[in-house]
Amino acid sequence: MSEKRQQRKAEHRRRILEAALDLFARQGFHRTSTRQIARRAGVAEGTIFNHFPTKKDLLVAAAGQAVDEYLGEDLEALPKAGTLDVLRETFRSRLELGWRHADRIRFLLGELLMNQEMRQAYFEAVVLRLTERLEGLLEQRVAQGYVRPCNVRVVAGALVGAFLTFLLVALLDEERRLLSDPLEEISDELARLFLYGLQPQAA
Amino acid sequence: MSEKRQQRKAEHRRRILEAALDLFARQGFHRTSTRQIARRAGVAEGTIFNHFPTKKDLLVAAAGQAVDEYLGEDLEALPKAGTLDVLRETFRSRLELGWRHADRIRFLLGELLMNQEMRQAYFEAVVLRLTERLEGLLEQRVAQGYVRPCNVRVVAGALVGAFLTFLLVALLDEERRLLSDPLEEISDELARLFLYGLQPQAA
Repeated sequence: MSEKRQQRKAEHRRRILEAALDLFARQGFHRTSTRQIARRAGVAEGTIFNHFPTKKDLLVAAAGQAVDEYLGEDLEALPKAGTLDVLRETFRSRLELGWRHADRIRFLLGELLMNQEMRQAYFEAVVLRLTERLEGLLEQRVAQGYVRPCNVRVVAGALVGAFLTFLLVALLDEERRLLSDPLEEISDELARLFLYGLQPQAA
Repeated sequence: MSEKRQQRKAEHRRRILEAALDLFARQGFHRTSTRQIARRAGVAEGTIFNHFPTKKDLLVAAAGQAVDEYLGEDLEALPKAGTLDVLRETFRSRLELGWRHADRIRFLLGELLMNQEMRQAYFEAVVLRLTERLEGLLEQRVAQGYVRPCNVRVVAGALVGAFLTFLLVALLDEERRLLSDPLEEISDELARLFLYGLQPQAA
């Protein structure tokens, strides 16, 4: 395949996944047709099936891509310098990105929980990949001396969970009764919590 | 109302909620009829409507009761002594209880995410009450000197999130590829994380 054709193919794939995730999150998986996705992505309907045999494959791939975007560049900095500043800024930027895409996260998590058939595929494409990448990152930081030796699997789970909570509450709390603190304050407290813990002497 | 009649009424309510949550989690909200719930609870169908005008009210009340049970006695100990042992044991007992009821938690969270109509009622009955009780508990511990001064709202959210993750992963990870650690090891690492944080000098 020529380089140009490969580039066009990758671009099509990206546009299809983006359109699918957007439509799924707004109108549900079953109410979204591949025809609608093709129209929004600006490709022929057949092009979708060249990339993804079924609508379900499309959903799993889209979920995987969402995780990759979420684990982009600046998460790699977590916490390279081992300082409160770096950790706080990483938390802030990830929460901001998550809040922007909160409808997608709610949709993906909801499908994952409610749809037994899709649970296994999701688990591999999303949960396992997410924790494996975070675990690798944490292991590096332990080796570099920025993070104390720990069970990186458990710590990665706790970090992902703390984020998910704030993303979900942001979605549910439309009157901001619970999340009245500015993003900076939330990020600051999370950074202190995961760096210093709750012991009184660390205050 | 006589004391005996009041007791019977409370017992009926409890049995109805228990039966409802059990059936909802196993066969879904819409596929469960009030007739089925009445049969399992051992009450007349009309008794259900004396307590809960609609099936939706029943779901919201059941969700609230599940939270109360989860926040039972031994959570009040969190972390009264400020020691690693107490924190670890609290985590262990809560994770164990959650794993036992993991199907309910998955169902409640899934409904909450997917059903726009029910989101607000859930938010009040479940999310707000859960975080308010945890916040009160944390404020007490700060005043008693067991926990450093902190934004209790953010910390409560991070704690709830860490638990939710481990409950959800337990549900998804049927082959235990991710959660191969024993419950004791997970509880121990979570206690260390929230007490000491990840800073290298605390190792």
